[in-house]
Amino acid sequence: MTKAIRTVAIVGAGLVGSGWAIVFARAGLEVKLYDVDAGIRNHVPAFLKGALEDMQGAGLVDKVDEVLARIEVVDTLEAAVTPAQYVQESVFERVDIKKQISLRIDAAMDSAAVVGSSSSGIPGSAFTEECTNRSRFLVVHPVNPPHLVPVVEIVPAPWTDTDVVTIANDLMSLVGQVPVLVRREIEGFILNRLQGALLNEAWALFEDGYASAADIDKTVAYGLGLRWSFMGPFETIDLNAPGGLKDYAERLAPLYHRIAQSRPTARAWSQEAIAAADAERRVALPAGDLAARREWRDAYLMRLAAFREKQEG
Amino acid sequence: MTKAIRTVAIVGAGLVGSGWAIVFARAGLEVKLYDVDAGIRNHVPAFLKGALEDMQGAGLVDKVDEVLARIEVVDTLEAAVTPAQYVQESVFERVDIKKQISLRIDAAMDSAAVVGSSSSGIPGSAFTEECTNRSRFLVVHPVNPPHLVPVVEIVPAPWTDTDVVTIANDLMSLVGQVPVLVRREIEGFILNRLQGALLNEAWALFEDGYASAADIDKTVAYGLGLRWSFMGPFETIDLNAPGGLKDYAERLAPLYHRIAQSRPTARAWSQEAIAAADAERRVALPAGDLAARREWRDAYLMRLAAFREKQEG
Repeated sequence: MTKAIRTVAIVGAGLVGSGWAIVFARAGLEVKLYDVDAGIRNHVPAFLKGALEDMQGAGLVDKVDEVLARIEVVDTLEAAVTPAQYVQESVFERVDIKKQISLRIDAAMDSAAVVGSSSSGIPGSAFTEECTNRSRFLVVHPVNPPHLVPVVEIVPAPWTDTDVVTIANDLMSLVGQVPVLVRREIEGFILNRLQGALLNEAWALFEDGYASAADIDKTVAYGLGLRWSFMGPFETIDLNAPGGLKDYAERLAPLYHRIAQSRPTARAWSQEAIAAADAERRVALPAGDLAARREWRDAYLMRLAAFREKQEG
Repeated sequence: MTKAIRTVAIVGAGLVGSGWAIVFARAGLEVKLYDVDAGIRNHVPAFLKGALEDMQGAGLVDKVDEVLARIEVVDTLEAAVTPAQYVQESVFERVDIKKQISLRIDAAMDSAAVVGSSSSGIPGSAFTEECTNRSRFLVVHPVNPPHLVPVVEIVPAPWTDTDVVTIANDLMSLVGQVPVLVRREIEGFILNRLQGALLNEAWALFEDGYASAADIDKTVAYGLGLRWSFMGPFETIDLNAPGGLKDYAERLAPLYHRIAQSRPTARAWSQEAIAAADAERRVALPAGDLAARREWRDAYLMRLAAFREKQEG
């Protein structure tokens, strides 16, 4: 199909791009990492070292120095992209920026290379149409941070070559991620549409006064989210009725249809509800503690990843 | 407020009622367990012993025999209910059955006792209105199995006394569950409304051919579900933008509103989609393997519960 992927370019070295660098280097690939911002380029080696040492502490990485040695920070987009068989574009999520960077990648790339965008919801066709090599572009959307949350959505544009989808899928499996195929473009793809559906209901329940944001959070963190952390929604319901999914659907589809019908119009998150939920959150977690709580989350995700590695099946 | 709760009656000894017996006995309370079906009554001690031994293997219970000694299976509803300060009703989820059993509990109970129903979506007002002690009834909805998934939804009916809500809430905290308050009745409560919102979107994406059921499952089990297993949706978005929840809402509320608008009518799960998803599931997991996979799920939930006990914060 294509020559083997040995060198990966990452364009954009923010949190997502840096996480990608760890994913590829951990798997033994050579990484060329570029960011337009010299400050970020200077800072990123120390950030990667810290993240990898944390992962080593959690038993997720063996040899930090060897992984770091495979990541080279380069000063131009071309120095990253030209030698790469795969390019992961991870720049700011705005159509005009994605469009401009895609054209620059297009001009610098090997025409046999594949370019995946980390876009979390904007379909590739919104920013790759004018590229000469547009058949080599697609969306390869990770969850942040990609080195701790393995799912990746692969979303071809209408002009993406079939073999490019295969290459991206195989590469993601090779580096230990979990690829899912979104067969055609849709705004928000699968992951953010599922998240949005749950969030929209959560906001409506909060705004209508049925429960506090803290109690809605507990319903997920001590309830729904447990099974969902190792089985998806279809497998969950498949195991929740004696006769499997069909049996479950016969029993409960009417309930879920009534729930959908009880939200007849799409409600935006109101300014009042946002202010109220924000006020509740800022009492639970003052703004000054957000950064520390993010570190706690990432440390928890690391321990959870180490736990998951030990599970079979 | 009320005399201390030392004896708990459980009416209905299926999977949910048996799990409740473990929850209360594990916490040191005396349990009277009743089921209308003599076959179930005969089988339940062996079931409880097996479940507790599995929990001991996972480090979740110390002394199986002491826990078992606190559970007495009794032959009449009255023998369970009359001596109890708290009753957990866990019979089949149909309004007529819940109504009939609630009246029988009502006739046998101490008028100062509290009666929680395990109803997963039917509001208490649909089946407790005619009870003399109706102010002592409310919904106390667990997730199955309650001894491994701690969240409990507390849902008062319009006639439930305020102190009954407090008693149920305090009891759940005391026995190690995580109570959430649903301030007034709504079909499906919080948990199944959130589950339904996500399921409805999952079914629509599946039916429209965007992804396989397996790939939708992976999106949750290797992505969304990881953070949701220790943080709820509000905390998740609060940590996902530099300025917290308000900042996140300003950036992303329009995306989620468009996602909602793209589902303008409530779609039922179609028979065709159900048949297709069922066919996919039965290839992934033959019907004959459902029971074994449920055991795997419960064993995984146990290991996850043991992992969670070791985490701080």
